[in-house]
Amino acid sequence: MDIRVGTGIDVHAFSEDPSRPLFLACLRWPGERGLEGHSDADVAAHAACDAILIASGVGDLGTVFGTERPEWAGASGSALLAEAVRLARADGWATANVSIQIVGQRPRFLPRKAEAEKAMGDVVGAPVGVSATTTDRLGFTGRGEGLAAIATALVHRI
Amino acid sequence: MDIRVGTGIDVHAFSEDPSRPLFLACLRWPGERGLEGHSDADVAAHAACDAILIASGVGDLGTVFGTERPEWAGASGSALLAEAVRLARADGWATANVSIQIVGQRPRFLPRKAEAEKAMGDVVGAPVGVSATTTDRLGFTGRGEGLAAIATALVHRI
Amino acid sequence: MDIRVGTGIDVHAFSEDPSRPLFLACLRWPGERGLEGHSDADVAAHAACDAILIASGVGDLGTVFGTERPEWAGASGSALLAEAVRLARADGWATANVSIQIVGQRPRFLPRKAEAEKAMGDVVGAPVGVSATTTDRLGFTGRGEGLAAIATALVHRI
Ligand SMILES: [Zn+2]
Ligand SMILES: [Zn+2]
Ligand SMILES: [Zn+2]
Repeated sequence: MDIRVGTGIDVHAFSEDPSRPLFLACLRWPGERGLEGHSDADVAAHAACDAILIASGVGDLGTVFGTERPEWAGASGSALLAEAVRLARADGWATANVSIQIVGQRPRFLPRKAEAEKAMGDVVGAPVGVSATTTDRLGFTGRGEGLAAIATALVHRI
Repeated sequence: MDIRVGTGIDVHAFSEDPSRPLFLACLRWPGERGLEGHSDADVAAHAACDAILIASGVGDLGTVFGTERPEWAGASGSALLAEAVRLARADGWATANVSIQIVGQRPRFLPRKAEAEKAMGDVVGAPVGVSATTTDRLGFTGRGEGLAAIATALVHRI
Repeated sequence: MDIRVGTGIDVHAFSEDPSRPLFLACLRWPGERGLEGHSDADVAAHAACDAILIASGVGDLGTVFGTERPEWAGASGSALLAEAVRLARADGWATANVSIQIVGQRPRFLPRKAEAEKAMGDVVGAPVGVSATTTDRLGFTGRGEGLAAIATALVHRI
């Protein structure tokens, strides 16, 4: 088979530091509370990375950007995503498309949906659809403790 | 590539109004507690809509059925799903299949699984597999606070 | 269309019995707390089973291994996964690949990632990518109450 699928999930907690900026879906969100975590904590970009890496069999966030490659510590979600696409391609896999769903109460995503899809699509070099949903105030995303994202990628042999 | 994938998630809380009916997977469930939310709160149908819309690049529940199209307020999950399939097709994408997993303690899904798959498959015009699982009493679904559904759709260029 | 996708989710709570072993991704994990549940409670194998069964339209864990087939009670995740692949194949569907993401704080997965992918890939007869992520201490997986896994499978007509 020359086609493969991959699904990645990422979760980060909101930061208690009000000065920490929010990065989400390869965009900066002024005035929104930031997320804790390694690098810029962009859950959408990180989930997309894992989806592409797992689909292409190249590895995952931990093996590719982990402690053995300290040069990636603090890298932006965009930079990680570009490298994931590059590694998959170097191994013979092009990304057909990526679907991302962000789960959380904030920020209101719809006004910047087109901008986010453009930013992520430019990095991936393929269509990236990004949507956001709430959980009706249920669970940790519903209580506003953090954001989750799930991404599914389809890759095909070059 | 003439094939794309999409994943959608939806969550609704159980209603405190015992007279509110439950709609799930394009079926009515007499005697089961209903879900709160816009329209009929059918998490399985809504997740399937998002999966198809995101895969085909047509939009998502918010952009397609949001406040700018008030004629869709209160529409059934079946009606939304039929419209999602129609919009994807109008944009050149046929749905190959949809996979849906419902997450929650109630209702017992297995006795009506075949009926639900038939109802949803008739609306989509392609195979729809629907399964249900519990979370071992963990999290908001395990505490019976609400239902979640995750759907993955494969679409192909017509 | 000769290709279909399926997504499965599974969750099990950690056992209060310290002598219960952990089975995860078709491996035994000495020294790690086990999971409660039917059979060996291998969330990764169970999610993969559901993904393959739903994608191929053969059924799901409940219909295939449920109370009507008591001979499967207590079967290992590996045995269930092998049978899911066999049933899909008997119905005309080969598994192209499976992507699995395990969600939880423990065990540390990375040191045994290659071993797990080999074990699961040998059972499935196709590439299986397995990754693990934490939820930043959020939700039931973050509190260490249990493990979740999400699997996506791509199958194609033989
Ligand atoms: Zn992350
Ligand atoms: Zn909904
Ligand atoms: Zn299980």
